[in-house]
Amino acid sequence: MPAKKMLLVVCDGLSDRPVKEFDRKTPLQAAKKPAMDALARHGISGTMDVIGHGIIPGSDTAHLALFGYDPHKVYTGRGPIEAAGAGIALQPGDVAFRCNFATVDGRMKVIDRRAGRIKHGTGELAAAISGMEISGVQVIFKEGSEHRGVLVLRGKGLDHRVTDVDPHAEEKIHTSKALCPQGKKTAEVVNEFVKRSSAILRKHPVNVQRVKEGLPPANAILPRGPGSIKELEPLSERYGLKCAAVAGVTLVKGICRLVGMEVPDVPGATGGLDTDYRAKGEAALRLLATNDFVFLNVKAGDVAGHDGDFRNKVRVVESIDMMLGLILKDIHEDVVVAITCDHSTPVSVREHSADPVPLSISGGGARIDGVKEFDEISCAAGALGRIRGMDLMPIMLGMADRAKKFGA
Amino acid sequence: MPAKKMLLVVCDGLSDRPVKEFDRKTPLQAAKKPAMDALARHGISGTMDVIGHGIIPGSDTAHLALFGYDPHKVYTGRGPIEAAGAGIALQPGDVAFRCNFATVDGRMKVIDRRAGRIKHGTGELAAAISGMEISGVQVIFKEGSEHRGVLVLRGKGLDHRVTDVDPHAEEKIHTSKALCPQGKKTAEVVNEFVKRSSAILRKHPVNVQRVKEGLPPANAILPRGPGSIKELEPLSERYGLKCAAVAGVTLVKGICRLVGMEVPDVPGATGGLDTDYRAKGEAALRLLATNDFVFLNVKAGDVAGHDGDFRNKVRVVESIDMMLGLILKDIHEDVVVAITCDHSTPVSVREHSADPVPLSISGGGARIDGVKEFDEISCAAGALGRIRGMDLMPIMLGMADRAKKFGA
Repeated sequence: MPAKKMLLVVCDGLSDRPVKEFDRKTPLQAAKKPAMDALARHGISGTMDVIGHGIIPGSDTAHLALFGYDPHKVYTGRGPIEAAGAGIALQPGDVAFRCNFATVDGRMKVIDRRAGRIKHGTGELAAAISGMEISGVQVIFKEGSEHRGVLVLRGKGLDHRVTDVDPHAEEKIHTSKALCPQGKKTAEVVNEFVKRSSAILRKHPVNVQRVKEGLPPANAILPRGPGSIKELEPLSERYGLKCAAVAGVTLVKGICRLVGMEVPDVPGATGGLDTDYRAKGEAALRLLATNDFVFLNVKAGDVAGHDGDFRNKVRVVESIDMMLGLILKDIHEDVVVAITCDHSTPVSVREHSADPVPLSISGGGARIDGVKEFDEISCAAGALGRIRGMDLMPIMLGMADRAKKFGA
Repeated sequence: MPAKKMLLVVCDGLSDRPVKEFDRKTPLQAAKKPAMDALARHGISGTMDVIGHGIIPGSDTAHLALFGYDPHKVYTGRGPIEAAGAGIALQPGDVAFRCNFATVDGRMKVIDRRAGRIKHGTGELAAAISGMEISGVQVIFKEGSEHRGVLVLRGKGLDHRVTDVDPHAEEKIHTSKALCPQGKKTAEVVNEFVKRSSAILRKHPVNVQRVKEGLPPANAILPRGPGSIKELEPLSERYGLKCAAVAGVTLVKGICRLVGMEVPDVPGATGGLDTDYRAKGEAALRLLATNDFVFLNVKAGDVAGHDGDFRNKVRVVESIDMMLGLILKDIHEDVVVAITCDHSTPVSVREHSADPVPLSISGGGARIDGVKEFDEISCAAGALGRIRGMDLMPIMLGMADRAKKFGA
């Protein structure tokens, strides 16, 4: 039996809870979504605890699990994932931090944790502080979107088990402390970096100009969320898959790169409500021609969930459905297509929740059960039962005739 | 509550996928099977990942799991299972290989890996090469069905981590190599055995006669699939069960013997499509009179699956159903009867697949859910949910009032 291709569509945060004001329906139950329902009707459905029962998934840990990696084993903080998202190729032994550009006073008390949500000039500021060497450790700094950045330390004897410099409040910045003897050098390097970088940033033309304009200067870096990358066995080696991803948000792109996916830029594909659904669907189809496994993430449902906006979330469902319809129209029935979510972001919670997510898979060797609609309740009656996020990849590989035999 | 008896019927490879050309039904869905459906209707159903999600079970690992042993812990290759099937009582420390009688030329290049599928005389050939001693290691060789045989090495300092001699192709036979330092002696003994046995076989009257008749001589032994037996705690000790099995194929018989089951020969019970279903059913009923747990394997569904023959697989379903009907007619309602498969062998794949298998259990303390038919989709709606193969034995023991209490 020849191995089949696989497409995984993840609707970020689209899964929800019943909302009293809308007839106790979820946005998925309230929306018109002929393509999603067709996929469920021609395939097999279930529900999925992406990490485990009663664990609220982050988008990062959720995607690691969906790709078959045990987040409890491989996840060591958000820094490495942000770094990968920013395009820094981490090496084992590196320690990475998420950072904010911030405004501090002369005594390093934080005045504004986001430097007035600075939008311009962070590239020049980052260039000015990147490349220094501290105690033999190479410092790499790269700006992210708005006030965000990534700090990577590269050298011998580093360890991610150190505390944050970011006080997470408007108070004096913290001194990073080692959480174990191995973290001592890292904490020293981070503290020295914060001191030296602040001295450079205070005098930088970008900040001189900001002060002139009455804007808060980006005169300090606040590292937090340190982590080291475990060497993740790429999907190509793990499952023999040539993979590519379509995603708008840095964090998700970062995870895709960490597991060895090609992540081309898709014009118009953002992580927001304004994303170009059609462009994303077309990009996925295009990538499917030259890859074994294509992953497609649409972030907008999560955004609507965080906004607590039921009507907008219904609109997102219908936009994703339009995109899925385009895909299904052109896809070969041999391709194993799965649609699911990385977590629930109920509009009533405005945050991620631990509720399981719906899942439907059709095509390839997928069986066909009696489920006729794609939503949180209909899918729970499906023949897939209730699975964990880490089970999804093995199950899809099985349906794509790519599973391994154990025994004779 | 007195402990109840248990009967487990395993329909080898009967589970399948929807087949497009047959109205997207599986053979189980297409067949008439009143007995299987009655069992489902009067009991509780579910689906089962015999080894785990997305793992294609071998028949050997699957049966170990169904009997409650973790195949990841106890399985070290097919050799020991074939040896047990051939009636060789393995001892810890022994290393066992599956072998083929093969035809080689003067330079040990394989001409025919199965010596023309030799049918007669292998008993005499085996006797001629069994019993030799190499470097203090005792060599036991026994013929199997047709061109098959088993090699067992018994002595000190052996280890199963060596490579195959069998080149699995028509090329020069391989030299067995140690995969770790502990395997060195074993590899040397195997290579010496292959040399010495070939010298004996070439001159053996059986082969002299074959050459005269223009048949390929069975003049070499190709060992492969080395393994050592982990001492399996017998089912009698593990669960306090007196057990017996009805099975036609050597491999399954071997596993049953490994876990301490009595495996009487049942005239007419083969591992093929021609097996005597009635004789198997009657044997199972007979054994149930004197045992606590009887296991019954019917191989024919797997054979039809490997052949890719939908219609024949439907006929196998109906034959097994007839057999099950005979059993259910005469069995006491206190007996816990389970019907399931060791793996799927979809006719569209012609090989084992990772798809979960259906499971129904009735009798004894089994609950009764709403499932009315025994097939891959109907059972998925059952109250058992989706379980793993290793869970089956504990669940059956619970329904048979044989489970152990944990706590006060």
